[in-house]
Amino acid sequence: MLEEPLKFKYETRPAPTAENDFDVIVQVKATGICGSDVHFWTHGRIYDLIVDSPVVLGHESAGIVTAVGPRVKNVQVGDRVCIEPGRPCYRCNDCLSGQYNHCQNMVFAAVCPVDGTLCKYFKVDSPFVYKLPESVSLEEGAVAEPISVAAHACRLSGATHNSTCLVLGAGPVGYLIAALLKKAYGATNVVLVDVNEERLRFSREHLGVATYLSVKGKSAADVAKELVAQAGLEDERGFSVSFDATGVEFCGQVALNALRSRGTFMQVGMGADMISVPISVICMREIKVIGCFRYNQGDFKESVKLLADGILDVKPLITSKYAFSEAEAAFEASRRGIGMKTVIYGPE
Amino acid sequence: MLEEPLKFKYETRPAPTAENDFDVIVQVKATGICGSDVHFWTHGRIYDLIVDSPVVLGHESAGIVTAVGPRVKNVQVGDRVCIEPGRPCYRCNDCLSGQYNHCQNMVFAAVCPVDGTLCKYFKVDSPFVYKLPESVSLEEGAVAEPISVAAHACRLSGATHNSTCLVLGAGPVGYLIAALLKKAYGATNVVLVDVNEERLRFSREHLGVATYLSVKGKSAADVAKELVAQAGLEDERGFSVSFDATGVEFCGQVALNALRSRGTFMQVGMGADMISVPISVICMREIKVIGCFRYNQGDFKESVKLLADGILDVKPLITSKYAFSEAEAAFEASRRGIGMKTVIYGPE
Amino acid sequence: MLEEPLKFKYETRPAPTAENDFDVIVQVKATGICGSDVHFWTHGRIYDLIVDSPVVLGHESAGIVTAVGPRVKNVQVGDRVCIEPGRPCYRCNDCLSGQYNHCQNMVFAAVCPVDGTLCKYFKVDSPFVYKLPESVSLEEGAVAEPISVAAHACRLSGATHNSTCLVLGAGPVGYLIAALLKKAYGATNVVLVDVNEERLRFSREHLGVATYLSVKGKSAADVAKELVAQAGLEDERGFSVSFDATGVEFCGQVALNALRSRGTFMQVGMGADMISVPISVICMREIKVIGCFRYNQGDFKESVKLLADGILDVKPLITSKYAFSEAEAAFEASRRGIGMKTVIYGPE
Amino acid sequence: MLEEPLKFKYETRPAPTAENDFDVIVQVKATGICGSDVHFWTHGRIYDLIVDSPVVLGHESAGIVTAVGPRVKNVQVGDRVCIEPGRPCYRCNDCLSGQYNHCQNMVFAAVCPVDGTLCKYFKVDSPFVYKLPESVSLEEGAVAEPISVAAHACRLSGATHNSTCLVLGAGPVGYLIAALLKKAYGATNVVLVDVNEERLRFSREHLGVATYLSVKGKSAADVAKELVAQAGLEDERGFSVSFDATGVEFCGQVALNALRSRGTFMQVGMGADMISVPISVICMREIKVIGCFRYNQGDFKESVKLLADGILDVKPLITSKYAFSEAEAAFEASRRGIGMKTVIYGPE
Repeated sequence: MLEEPLKFKYETRPAPTAENDFDVIVQVKATGICGSDVHFWTHGRIYDLIVDSPVVLGHESAGIVTAVGPRVKNVQVGDRVCIEPGRPCYRCNDCLSGQYNHCQNMVFAAVCPVDGTLCKYFKVDSPFVYKLPESVSLEEGAVAEPISVAAHACRLSGATHNSTCLVLGAGPVGYLIAALLKKAYGATNVVLVDVNEERLRFSREHLGVATYLSVKGKSAADVAKELVAQAGLEDERGFSVSFDATGVEFCGQVALNALRSRGTFMQVGMGADMISVPISVICMREIKVIGCFRYNQGDFKESVKLLADGILDVKPLITSKYAFSEAEAAFEASRRGIGMKTVIYGPE
Repeated sequence: MLEEPLKFKYETRPAPTAENDFDVIVQVKATGICGSDVHFWTHGRIYDLIVDSPVVLGHESAGIVTAVGPRVKNVQVGDRVCIEPGRPCYRCNDCLSGQYNHCQNMVFAAVCPVDGTLCKYFKVDSPFVYKLPESVSLEEGAVAEPISVAAHACRLSGATHNSTCLVLGAGPVGYLIAALLKKAYGATNVVLVDVNEERLRFSREHLGVATYLSVKGKSAADVAKELVAQAGLEDERGFSVSFDATGVEFCGQVALNALRSRGTFMQVGMGADMISVPISVICMREIKVIGCFRYNQGDFKESVKLLADGILDVKPLITSKYAFSEAEAAFEASRRGIGMKTVIYGPE
Repeated sequence: MLEEPLKFKYETRPAPTAENDFDVIVQVKATGICGSDVHFWTHGRIYDLIVDSPVVLGHESAGIVTAVGPRVKNVQVGDRVCIEPGRPCYRCNDCLSGQYNHCQNMVFAAVCPVDGTLCKYFKVDSPFVYKLPESVSLEEGAVAEPISVAAHACRLSGATHNSTCLVLGAGPVGYLIAALLKKAYGATNVVLVDVNEERLRFSREHLGVATYLSVKGKSAADVAKELVAQAGLEDERGFSVSFDATGVEFCGQVALNALRSRGTFMQVGMGADMISVPISVICMREIKVIGCFRYNQGDFKESVKLLADGILDVKPLITSKYAFSEAEAAFEASRRGIGMKTVIYGPE
Repeated sequence: MLEEPLKFKYETRPAPTAENDFDVIVQVKATGICGSDVHFWTHGRIYDLIVDSPVVLGHESAGIVTAVGPRVKNVQVGDRVCIEPGRPCYRCNDCLSGQYNHCQNMVFAAVCPVDGTLCKYFKVDSPFVYKLPESVSLEEGAVAEPISVAAHACRLSGATHNSTCLVLGAGPVGYLIAALLKKAYGATNVVLVDVNEERLRFSREHLGVATYLSVKGKSAADVAKELVAQAGLEDERGFSVSFDATGVEFCGQVALNALRSRGTFMQVGMGADMISVPISVICMREIKVIGCFRYNQGDFKESVKLLADGILDVKPLITSKYAFSEAEAAFEASRRGIGMKTVIYGPE
């Protein structure tokens, strides 16, 4: 439990029971650490989401089903599953129109006062557990959550195999976006950019895609021009889709300037509250800027399928592993940007 | 001709001839003054578009056909027509995919060094003259151009009769957007906002829609909240579509903050080169920001049809009328924001 | 209750109670008779839907709320409401992706063995009751259901104010489609066709739109050509959208042949199980054929809003009124196609 | 030249010259034989397209540029190119809206009285020649045309890497559709069906995809059910996209019945003029039926890119090769369905 910034405590609580028709109880076995967990841990807030009472963190988890409600059909006790960590209300306009990620009554793991998944038993509603096939380990299953974030962003972007794609930021989400575009969408022209040499090495090795971005003294428009030229897209006058997975204003500006007419810019994940954008470029090229927030069910299904079909291999992505009792060290490692993805095992 | 900022001269030139298969020669009879004309006249430039040699201004014109090339079929000599003031190359990717507004070889009226329509005879390619029915006057025909700008913005926005719409800026383009949404799209919930009381009076009288925006000491988020409440859209958590037709950063921010989840913000026309936007709002609500630039053929056809069917009545919009010899006075009046639309008649 | 074809019986049953969180009990006051009710009554089946045990008919109803479950917020006891007559499962893929009309667990009124709304008290889940404003009577509220069918078809068709629209069949649904296109969508070119002179008179009087279709000895292609010519759409080579609301093969063929390139044909309601279509026309013009089935929540909301805003006036549509005790006479009148819409009041 | 059904003659004519600005003269080196060529050759007509005067056949060609008009920039003399065999008018509504495949003024190769590409020199407008990279042979370039047919069908279908796809007919176009879906779109669940064992062997060997369809005494609904079960799509209740590339009524019915709710059926290529379709299935599942006709420029660019990037390997598809002087034998082989694609070389 996060009590206050940088301070965890461990607590023993009664285990939840499958008292409702569609309840599923999952014994959590592996949980990835997300940038937002680290942000809560460090600052005690993200925008309006404030940790004002002790809260359990964690929302990227997989585990084993230990109990199910009487009407649950998609999983049974003993199944290995990954967890989609939200429970919408089902009955509001957003839910009924297929956009439950905007449900105002959403109960989402680790958004205070709702406890997260870093606990022994976690209760989920049945549509939000997905059975993992033999071939997918629990720690890979835990990565289904960030894959879903990437899958949602890619889907909203309208990218296809014909798209020319620029991704800024080679952290886990940026890497996964580039991986999805290349491996799942079949896009042949994908450029992934970062300033962190270690992450670039990783992307080059595992995805065959990576570009070092030297920005010193250059304008966003200049950097964009270079990237377009390097990608051989001068005739097309830019990329058809760009993603910023850094949250850094300058990166967003590069991603916007690098688009061709009618291109699409996706802001993924969050950083600054306000950023300055080249509105004249947006107008003259009729660019679309689209925000994305979490995912819908289709995205989670897609993620599990990509793992099951072996299209995405996320094993190398899990670069740090910790026991539950070492949670604080795991968070510290994540905060310092060591490796790509940190996974916490247990509690046992 | 604009020689340098604020300085016109009149010049006599040889009349163009219909030498190519699809040429149409139009004797210009009425020309509206656009904000961009005034901007060129005042500053000698708009972004990268610089007046570095004398150029004829004007791109909102209607007139009478005086000659046609041998393969022209859609109009004949004597027809009253309005002019779509650009000639694309037809053969580039943008043209072949129906997006000629992005054609890099576009020859567009009054974009230096291409002369505009404020002249006696203007040469157009046949698809870009539209015959006016009896019921539409030449001065109304001249307004087809700004209607097309509004029609293009409305079309890209995806608005429907079910949309709840916010328009910032009650100048000609903002007024026309609100008018299109209400009269053509059948949207029942349209809010048009400005700080200019005269323009609001005009909109209230002719469209039944107008709201005074008092912004002193308020944040964009606060103003947005007020507008949402006034429109009775608190349950919906905002408008489904918003348009900024002012180019003012604060207005763009209001328009963004006033949107519900998955809402669309359109930036119409241009002002600042860079604006600061609430990227966290764009992300969390998955908002679409779309730029728009000129129009495509369908938009001009739609505009002429709306005039022909009497759905849009733009007569009251033409609040100032000048002879060709009084052009300077006409530009000065436009610059000072007197009335709504200024039209120059002639030259005779 | 329908016991067997053409045979009703009346039965007294225990009233349902609001035992679950989101239950709403509605005392039914007005119920429209639908073609499908009549079809069940006459033939005991529609396709695979077979009446193999006694079932209460009726699914177009409005009434007064008499009880609500503890978590119901959108209505309260005493509210006048119309009823969307289905209860989806909320948790399947179709529900979670906003397409609950395809939910395989749907509990839909009057689809055997689920009882319909022709009873004193009917239990609904809260998202599926819609409060009626003062200005809308209960009998008009009952018409929200067929309006929703029409609204769904119009929405799927992608029609806009610019569309040129052909509707075959001037019965209630065809009439409502034409009314929506004209009044709500702002389409200026709407043609409604039938062979029944009484229905045409009605449409002409109340909508200003109607065309008599004489088909004797003509091919579907010939009739289509005539309709296109009458509508002045020869240059456009046809309508952009067409709807068949008759279920008659010949009408579907006319509606397909009357479309221009990239036009859309909607099949609304059902008749024949198989129909023969001009596949060569579909290919060469790249036509889209789209089926539609019931409606989603947005459609019902739209219907109630159109009634509330006075955009659709359905009072004249209700041409026959019967007391509950005269149900059999009401069905007989409907079967014989007398008037437009038949409404049954009560039971009291 | 085709003089009358089954009768060719050879003729010597003056070579065309690059007299207009954008003319490109191509010396034809390789030409694929299409089912429509064979149909013209055999029957002298396809629907309304009648061979009523001698006409040169052929529209799938690649060759070498021998002359270019003064404003041609995309290719130069000596370039190896493939030919998109149509010249639209550029100025009609269809052209200006990016749908030149519907241009009524289209001049299309081998559609009488326009001569086709089976000649020494063929004149094209510059946007419609595409330079081939070193790695793509002229005979592969000739296959860009049928790939474009497949690419257009796939694009209109809205298929993505997540789609589950059924293709009926393993001839060249059906094979190419399945290949595109699998190799370019990244669809992991693609089923290709035929009754011709040789073609299935070919598809199995080169694409790893093929299913023998035994239809004796089965209804289309039964066959569809089997295919859905074999593909493990019972839970999804069918495929999300299906293509009929046979033109046979029964196959279209199978492809329709095998779709899940909101699925899309594409009719590719043509056979019967009328077919009987299960309209009740289309309605209840809200299926989209879409016709497709030729291609647009984006499709040709995509085809050349797929060849250049090595994503599609069409070398094995070219199973029969003939010299120009053996044209009649080549047509006869095509007519008898020997192998997959027949290519004619020359004339020299």
